[in-house]
Amino acid sequence: MSFLLNAWYVAAFADELNGATPLARTLLERPIVLYRDAKGQACALDDRCAHRFAPLSSGRVVDGVLESPSHGLRFDGSGRCVHNPHGDGRVPAQAQVRTYPVLERFGAIWFWPGDPQCADRARLAGFDFVDPATHFTHHGYLKTRAHYQLSADNLLDLSHFQFLHPDTLGSEAIARSDVQAGSLGETVWVRRSVFKETLQPFVANGFGVPAGSCVDRWMDVKWTPPGLLTIVVGVTAEGTPRESGRIAPSAHWLTPETARTTHYFFAFGLPTAMGDAGRELVRYAVEGLMRPFEREDLPMLEAQQARIGDTDFWDARPALLPIDRGAIRARRIMEGLITAEREGRAPGNAGEGHDRRTIGIRSAFEVS
Amino acid sequence: MSFLLNAWYVAAFADELNGATPLARTLLERPIVLYRDAKGQACALDDRCAHRFAPLSSGRVVDGVLESPSHGLRFDGSGRCVHNPHGDGRVPAQAQVRTYPVLERFGAIWFWPGDPQCADRARLAGFDFVDPATHFTHHGYLKTRAHYQLSADNLLDLSHFQFLHPDTLGSEAIARSDVQAGSLGETVWVRRSVFKETLQPFVANGFGVPAGSCVDRWMDVKWTPPGLLTIVVGVTAEGTPRESGRIAPSAHWLTPETARTTHYFFAFGLPTAMGDAGRELVRYAVEGLMRPFEREDLPMLEAQQARIGDTDFWDARPALLPIDRGAIRARRIMEGLITAEREGRAPGNAGEGHDRRTIGIRSAFEVS
Amino acid sequence: MSFLLNAWYVAAFADELNGATPLARTLLERPIVLYRDAKGQACALDDRCAHRFAPLSSGRVVDGVLESPSHGLRFDGSGRCVHNPHGDGRVPAQAQVRTYPVLERFGAIWFWPGDPQCADRARLAGFDFVDPATHFTHHGYLKTRAHYQLSADNLLDLSHFQFLHPDTLGSEAIARSDVQAGSLGETVWVRRSVFKETLQPFVANGFGVPAGSCVDRWMDVKWTPPGLLTIVVGVTAEGTPRESGRIAPSAHWLTPETARTTHYFFAFGLPTAMGDAGRELVRYAVEGLMRPFEREDLPMLEAQQARIGDTDFWDARPALLPIDRGAIRARRIMEGLITAEREGRAPGNAGEGHDRRTIGIRSAFEVS
Repeated sequence: MSFLLNAWYVAAFADELNGATPLARTLLERPIVLYRDAKGQACALDDRCAHRFAPLSSGRVVDGVLESPSHGLRFDGSGRCVHNPHGDGRVPAQAQVRTYPVLERFGAIWFWPGDPQCADRARLAGFDFVDPATHFTHHGYLKTRAHYQLSADNLLDLSHFQFLHPDTLGSEAIARSDVQAGSLGETVWVRRSVFKETLQPFVANGFGVPAGSCVDRWMDVKWTPPGLLTIVVGVTAEGTPRESGRIAPSAHWLTPETARTTHYFFAFGLPTAMGDAGRELVRYAVEGLMRPFEREDLPMLEAQQARIGDTDFWDARPALLPIDRGAIRARRIMEGLITAEREGRAPGNAGEGHDRRTIGIRSAFEVS
Repeated sequence: MSFLLNAWYVAAFADELNGATPLARTLLERPIVLYRDAKGQACALDDRCAHRFAPLSSGRVVDGVLESPSHGLRFDGSGRCVHNPHGDGRVPAQAQVRTYPVLERFGAIWFWPGDPQCADRARLAGFDFVDPATHFTHHGYLKTRAHYQLSADNLLDLSHFQFLHPDTLGSEAIARSDVQAGSLGETVWVRRSVFKETLQPFVANGFGVPAGSCVDRWMDVKWTPPGLLTIVVGVTAEGTPRESGRIAPSAHWLTPETARTTHYFFAFGLPTAMGDAGRELVRYAVEGLMRPFEREDLPMLEAQQARIGDTDFWDARPALLPIDRGAIRARRIMEGLITAEREGRAPGNAGEGHDRRTIGIRSAFEVS
Repeated sequence: MSFLLNAWYVAAFADELNGATPLARTLLERPIVLYRDAKGQACALDDRCAHRFAPLSSGRVVDGVLESPSHGLRFDGSGRCVHNPHGDGRVPAQAQVRTYPVLERFGAIWFWPGDPQCADRARLAGFDFVDPATHFTHHGYLKTRAHYQLSADNLLDLSHFQFLHPDTLGSEAIARSDVQAGSLGETVWVRRSVFKETLQPFVANGFGVPAGSCVDRWMDVKWTPPGLLTIVVGVTAEGTPRESGRIAPSAHWLTPETARTTHYFFAFGLPTAMGDAGRELVRYAVEGLMRPFEREDLPMLEAQQARIGDTDFWDARPALLPIDRGAIRARRIMEGLITAEREGRAPGNAGEGHDRRTIGIRSAFEVS
């Protein structure tokens, strides 16, 4: 299984990292330790002491550097051993731990597993609507026992709401939606409009719609590599324009833990200008979604992964439907990027090899 | 690990299948879904939606067809997609799930994992004594963590009663039994006569024998491929002929789940003409056997499998005893059938390659 | 993963074996059964009946021989089948189970997994200080989920006391120790002297030192293949000679269970001439050590093993420090012995291929 290495991935939510306790997390099959240095800056290192391979995450942060739990060697955020407590204290040249470029933005810690020279801050996707400086945000996390692309497929095709989440997110109207999918460069959109829908209480309450009333709902999904999605859902009175209703934007960040397990980070954000109502709504959304995500999506993704097993997705010969357009496009883009990277083409041009034609209409949808 | 494919295997007891809920079961390393269609006929399909590989067994039966749990595609008993709820509802040609020939007989659902053209009803072995139309029956199920042939070995050599089941099925007299084994074509018999035996209470009660009295017991085992056994046990007063005592026939059906795990289905049957006593006895037998089967046979079979590991049975060089004759014959027949099938010889002649001589006397024993 | 076969390994503590119950233990990836024969002599056999591979350890000891639990064959301490209860009772020539040379000494059962012709009693290392005939002894056991050489590394470098066991065995003075390491032939020594140390209560109490007083502590470690260590710790008033204080000798015996798991046997012994105080001290030492061993060493060793994974230790390129000298020497000796054995050089000369120069000073330390 190969991953795209030259890309920003979410390693953790920012509030998972404090100064006192290092955080252990396996990312792209690498055991990584995350911690904050004396200036509060997040650092990512291989979670393996250079001396005897002890997990640095089991040690402690001392004066902003990591102390190995077994023999007390200390490593700073650049991976350099800065202290050997034994004997004459000399530090051998090999006492160096690999580090990874790190950024903190949008309430998350982002890390770059590939060539550090390419770790350009400008390549980070935009998720301003969960910027904690300007928005109330609330977030959730789930470990998914499936390949990250299966999770992306699931988010890029919300038709599953009707069948998998009938009591919370779905309705009988969803399969009748108008669905448009498209891509531009490395970005994929799927735009779904559901008409004359009676919402389940969880959704109706969230959008302030009277129970049992007939509404229109739209759900726009935007995907960028390696697995970063924005979903905006809006609800309006039946037949009224999109602009007339309330919207709920959410971020969905998929980071492979291994080839068969995925860190699923998701967050809702609403402008602080909304006051307490906004603060309450983002919490309501995340807490309400945990149940269907955990009890319905997770087992389904795990079962799909089990059915596919070690077979390549395409070799398993899925019967493709129009609802799969966005997901297939995203898969093709990832395959193109990974192939380009493996063949040594410049990471900046990694997407050049694939077809840039849009499928269906090009969405004008933009968040923030 | 190769299995014999052109054969009828038990997939489930008939009463495990109702119309409302599909049943998931791995058979010969294939995830299979079983359900009843609108006419009540049992169907077996690969448990994997043609679209996105969701397990159909997690869906529901709607109007006699299976609805996939993730996106609502529906498949009938022939594996054809008969409903796509999305968009224009068209069904792509690949939307087809593999199905398996199925029969319902002797209180069981039988499936044929091989070439459907060869799935001849006439090739089903006879187990009339557990036909629910004419007999009271009761059945039990255990998952055995061992190769199915180890379970067959165990049933073909009941000398283990003395050592493994001393408190329930065994006695000190068993090792002194007269044992005859033979085969004719693809059928193997082992015929054991125990003389002057004092039975354990569980067996004595089942056969209506006073506790502590001295009896003769005979146990006849018949095996046919791929792992279908009939065991008839009879008890008589010491020195009296077989015809004078009560008999208890039972069916033992072994279906590989994987190369190392086995579905063990077993059933007792007595003619309805016996009235309530027969109904009570079949229940008594199954319920009483669950304890030694589960607590003594299962751990032993699992331990034997663990000791053999990935080694071929013959490469592990077992020291063969006369008590192994029937089991060895059954192994040789299975090896011949599997080799013939793999080499493309006509399934009907698959057994031709092996030695048809009988070992010891040929039993005249026939059930039903 | 290859093991050194021509060597004495500890299979069990002597008091684990009684006459009635066989003991199952996997040693060097072989399932072994240990039991005592009619004379009370310990025997070691493959834990696998020659007939149908049942685990002999699930059977029982009858008249000093092992009875197989499934079909009642009996095997004596030489592995010969001495009883077949079935039919005419003849025993086929293959009915022979592999056995291993066994010794009972120093409160332990030792077994020799290699060529029985080479199993020389004289090659057994000396651990007289835990001989139960002349010493009070107490022992502990832990299963370590790591390669046995990682455990040896850990015992050969007690600098980890300061960081891994700060509340029980360690102190801030340990990293400042004077450390000498050396080897002679196949024996490795590490000699550590800690000066002006304030001991944790567990150690201070054990050595009868007032809480908070300033002492010197020395810790001498001796290793011999395949993983047999003696550790002697002594405590004296600051600046006084070694002879003036109390000493605590302990044995540490590492036997691979598999390539990734280790049986860790350890024992303390003090001369019976010490009376009740000695009896109490060995118990105090073992019971007190179980906590840091189990809660601190075990998770650390397991984590190190996980970080190394299937990579060869040297390929993982550890940064070596002076504190690693003894451990590295022991690894090199084991590598030399295993290579010599694999290449068929005489086991007695197996250590010849490696460098016999001592590293640092040669310790004069000898126990018993």
